[in-house]
Amino acid sequence: MTASLRDRISGLFADYAWFLDAERYEDWLALFSESSMYRIVPRENVQYGLPGSLMLCKNKDMLRDRITTLLEVNEYNIHTTRHLLGASRFDDPVDDVVAVETPFAVYQTDQEGVSRLFGVGEYQSRISCAGSKLLFEANVVQLDTFSVPTLLADPL
Amino acid sequence: MTASLRDRISGLFADYAWFLDAERYEDWLALFSESSMYRIVPRENVQYGLPGSLMLCKNKDMLRDRITTLLEVNEYNIHTTRHLLGASRFDDPVDDVVAVETPFAVYQTDQEGVSRLFGVGEYQSRISCAGSKLLFEANVVQLDTFSVPTLLADPL
Amino acid sequence: MTASLRDRISGLFADYAWFLDAERYEDWLALFSESSMYRIVPRENVQYGLPGSLMLCKNKDMLRDRITTLLEVNEYNIHTTRHLLGASRFDDPVDDVVAVETPFAVYQTDQEGVSRLFGVGEYQSRISCAGSKLLFEANVVQLDTFSVPTLLADPL
Repeated sequence: MTASLRDRISGLFADYAWFLDAERYEDWLALFSESSMYRIVPRENVQYGLPGSLMLCKNKDMLRDRITTLLEVNEYNIHTTRHLLGASRFDDPVDDVVAVETPFAVYQTDQEGVSRLFGVGEYQSRISCAGSKLLFEANVVQLDTFSVPTLLADPL
Repeated sequence: MTASLRDRISGLFADYAWFLDAERYEDWLALFSESSMYRIVPRENVQYGLPGSLMLCKNKDMLRDRITTLLEVNEYNIHTTRHLLGASRFDDPVDDVVAVETPFAVYQTDQEGVSRLFGVGEYQSRISCAGSKLLFEANVVQLDTFSVPTLLADPL
Repeated sequence: MTASLRDRISGLFADYAWFLDAERYEDWLALFSESSMYRIVPRENVQYGLPGSLMLCKNKDMLRDRITTLLEVNEYNIHTTRHLLGASRFDDPVDDVVAVETPFAVYQTDQEGVSRLFGVGEYQSRISCAGSKLLFEANVVQLDTFSVPTLLADPL
């Protein structure tokens, strides 16, 4: 793992968080490859090998669909989000794919102006560094809780 | 943007957070240029282009004044703060000034020993890399909420 | 301080946080030297020079003992943890030891699935870079509160 690749991956996660918080969903989608998998899963299910997910998009079209719903249909639980990410842990690339673990906390601010912790967890990501642009091949959002305090409308 | 400049900017933000939390306000002030602007503004006002600020210092003297007040006058709402910053997003320097976005969470701990989330948001900063020392030319603290839970006495 | 050493120290802290959250305590222990000191202390005690600690392990054997207790005896307050660390501030190495300050927030998620802030503070660390592997010579966990909301069973 070169320092330069590490910097680029750190930049990818900074973009990931910022695009979500700035509601720039098209830019966020552009960080994923066409075949990429996106999944939100409680830590418990990972630990016990249970198959259930809180959100599962098996490819980028499913993720696009999700974003379209978010932008055009959902009109409740209006809030803004803020992601705080810790430093990533990297494995060495295998076949131009890097496995990365990144802890996160997500906060939501509602229309009354109250900011609250939404949840904490970690991203378990597979990132392709084959092309000129880094792309998520997979992002598994392991949420530390199985009990989501409000609706899980937007991706984490 | 060189890796070295990125490292120096990351170091600047680590100093920024730590000086505030350690109440080393003189050291914190030294991170700003004489002409620098400091402003705390709710996200909503940024979004709708509203001019109001929660705190506005148009130059470093106004910021010095604020710090003097904080140190010599205020004697209520005694607390300590803790800043957690996410990774910064950088633009390339233009005329030796870099535009940077950095997410943050600020916690306060009161005299009863209770630590609470104070607020989340992002720094929208302009950093001069003209001299041997990096300096803030502007720091706009965009707070995700318009509703500050306690007094906003200390800078964020 | 070279960029490479800075990257390695950042990686050490990413491991530190992740090993604790993944309950890989043996791997976490391996980050400490045999003579290393580990201490959790309220910020107030640091500020006023008071000697009391919330947890004190004068060497690695005491820390091993603590971990053994955690793994084999404690059966209450079941929870998972999540550490979010900010960027570290580095001094230049002196005699192959680097002094580092790193802010942190720790969250706990209980068996009901509720994630809460446990505490915030900073690590005041001394890291040996003499060997091929970085090792903690000392880690002082300065907790911003003297009032720990639940049992302090696991290291921070």
